[in-house]
Amino acid sequence: MATKIDPEKADFTSLVEGLAHKGRAAQRKLAALSSAARADALMQSSADIREDSAAILSANARDVAEGAARGLTDAMLDRLTLDPNRLESMAAALEAVAGLPDPVGDIIDSSTRPNGLEISRVRVPIGLIGIIYESRPNVTADAAALCVRSGNAALLRGGSEAVHSNRAIHAAFVRGLSASGISPEIVQLMPTQDREAVGAMLKAAGLIDMIVPRGGKSLVERVQNDARVPVLAHLDGICHTYVHSASDPAMAREIVVNAKMRRTGICGAMETLLIDREFADAQSLVRALIDAGCEVRGDPSVLQKDDRIIAASDDDWDTEYLAAVVSVAVVDDIDRALAHIARHSSNHTDAIITEDADAAERFLAEVDSAIVMHNASTQFADGGEFGLGAEIGIATGRLHARGPVALEGLTTYKWQVRGGGQARP
Amino acid sequence: MATKIDPEKADFTSLVEGLAHKGRAAQRKLAALSSAARADALMQSSADIREDSAAILSANARDVAEGAARGLTDAMLDRLTLDPNRLESMAAALEAVAGLPDPVGDIIDSSTRPNGLEISRVRVPIGLIGIIYESRPNVTADAAALCVRSGNAALLRGGSEAVHSNRAIHAAFVRGLSASGISPEIVQLMPTQDREAVGAMLKAAGLIDMIVPRGGKSLVERVQNDARVPVLAHLDGICHTYVHSASDPAMAREIVVNAKMRRTGICGAMETLLIDREFADAQSLVRALIDAGCEVRGDPSVLQKDDRIIAASDDDWDTEYLAAVVSVAVVDDIDRALAHIARHSSNHTDAIITEDADAAERFLAEVDSAIVMHNASTQFADGGEFGLGAEIGIATGRLHARGPVALEGLTTYKWQVRGGGQARP
Repeated sequence: MATKIDPEKADFTSLVEGLAHKGRAAQRKLAALSSAARADALMQSSADIREDSAAILSANARDVAEGAARGLTDAMLDRLTLDPNRLESMAAALEAVAGLPDPVGDIIDSSTRPNGLEISRVRVPIGLIGIIYESRPNVTADAAALCVRSGNAALLRGGSEAVHSNRAIHAAFVRGLSASGISPEIVQLMPTQDREAVGAMLKAAGLIDMIVPRGGKSLVERVQNDARVPVLAHLDGICHTYVHSASDPAMAREIVVNAKMRRTGICGAMETLLIDREFADAQSLVRALIDAGCEVRGDPSVLQKDDRIIAASDDDWDTEYLAAVVSVAVVDDIDRALAHIARHSSNHTDAIITEDADAAERFLAEVDSAIVMHNASTQFADGGEFGLGAEIGIATGRLHARGPVALEGLTTYKWQVRGGGQARP
Repeated sequence: MATKIDPEKADFTSLVEGLAHKGRAAQRKLAALSSAARADALMQSSADIREDSAAILSANARDVAEGAARGLTDAMLDRLTLDPNRLESMAAALEAVAGLPDPVGDIIDSSTRPNGLEISRVRVPIGLIGIIYESRPNVTADAAALCVRSGNAALLRGGSEAVHSNRAIHAAFVRGLSASGISPEIVQLMPTQDREAVGAMLKAAGLIDMIVPRGGKSLVERVQNDARVPVLAHLDGICHTYVHSASDPAMAREIVVNAKMRRTGICGAMETLLIDREFADAQSLVRALIDAGCEVRGDPSVLQKDDRIIAASDDDWDTEYLAAVVSVAVVDDIDRALAHIARHSSNHTDAIITEDADAAERFLAEVDSAIVMHNASTQFADGGEFGLGAEIGIATGRLHARGPVALEGLTTYKWQVRGGGQARP
């Protein structure tokens, strides 16, 4: 008996190539539209998502039932589940993105050369953005909206556990765009859930301009390892808070408990607390964490502060718990704190608490992380909190865009040169 | 008899790792120096290159003699050869880079949030830049100077034909830096010319932050194909000039001949000329190129203009001649010109010649190249001509930096957040 070959599986490279060509062609037309037209289209997409709410919720119920039958954890099911409130948040988020200032067409700088050439750098969309995500179906609408607002095409590949939800959201989203004359090919959903198709996306250099993975560490790790396309991402958020000797004890307690416990599962949550040996109030600081329900793993100096503290192992200093657990070390001075952070930070977000302005400025200058903070909770590491209106992700790479990335990070620029007949001598 | 293992060849990965760690450590110290201190150090490097001129010229004479014996072409020997004038240009270029405004520390933008957090984006060096180049020994000094001016470390790998020249230049350069207390490890020369060592550089993701290849197409192609580190480069410069129906014939002739013939070997040289069918003066335009010594390969419509024109093949439209050869096509209108450029351009530099402002603006908006020009010669595609003072290269990629790249493209940014005790609600 002959083996049946799934024609989709036979050539994912061609599949991605075909989708990319369609997306790029649609993007060239989108780039010619005005900013207002793109905003109007997103308002219509938002309306169409509200209009389709019954269909979307029913598709989602099917995903959730199938997920439960397949034994997804409660946390996974929670991420997957939509309800009327979450759906309304999704629709409202599209309206918010529609209302964001559009960076496309902004003039970054311009000059007139001595020979009369007028030279300016103008922001333009990047092109085609690949988004690879896991169980949260709202990413389908959020990421697509940021791409469209900034004049880009998107190729979306969501988690297989959310496939019916994603299709229903996508259908409403592109119907809204079509009402404004935008091709539905501007936002395409990968037609297969085969993992090998993700591999084909990752290899599509020159066809997909950038890939943004949205999900857990194993997804981001795979994307970073296998991609030939530039990736915008962060792998870990091993965020530190250093409580300097000259810090205000009450402020330190409030910020530290917030940085760890407000939401333990986000990338900006503090994972390691460094306490200066000269800080007088270390015991009550650590006890405030314990009282808030946090497990504390400490070095030998910390262990003495309370008998509920467990001994930290070497691995603790490089662990992103994403849970109510914190590693705590006592450091001799700011030099040791900076050295610890240089060695163990994932370069996402690190903070100092101090009333000493010189120590603060030194920390802000020398810590080599995407976000450095003084007297604030690391939980503020977020595009919305930074005033960007939204975020496509947080990047810890050093090129293109760093930290929270929203619309500007989805653009590049071109040089426009206006002459009056100049030939080069 | 046991096989002898060359210890360097045995583990190029470890070699690059060791060099990268040294370079990164030196970079952290450099970043703490003031801009003026880095500028002073480059002035001293320039002085030390002048002081070592006899040693550098003698090392270069050895490279040239060995190259001639190995049968290098005249063009390669010319690129390799230094003389007192070229050496003086190299020293003067370092002084010019020392005098450039330093982007490090610039505040890109800042805002105060409703909760009082002060948020700003500040330019910082990227880190460690790998430069892989061919026979021109001046790149050793030029590229290193741009890296140091912008607070970066450099790992240089020059062509084996220039090995003695590069070592002599490098020795003078780092001696100058040392006088200002900068570690010589800020600019390191790869200690081996083995091609596999280049491979180890290309794979050093996380250790080398960016690679800039400087040289011919085969070098750039290998770097782009094999690198796991982000690459700043352009592969081809297939630059177009479109002579619109409403262009001034005299201006068109002057610009077109300049764009092709001023220097035929540079990436900004025009390779394809598109002439609008309605442009009345096509014949004299093509004849001006022929009279200037250019071989013209034309489509059937162009062939009729002069019997010295040869028929273009399909390949001609995708060929970067880097020689006194041009492909010429007649196009029906601006739509066809834009379509030809979208299909065949390498997205480096493309120009329109026209007196029609609408056509010009449409071309500048719709052509998706790093540099788009109106009424100017494509030969202006150069960092110096754009007012950047120098260039590390020209990039046709879409992320990070595009077009001519100088100091700003060698920086990234960090977010600095200054609070007064804020916890996130």
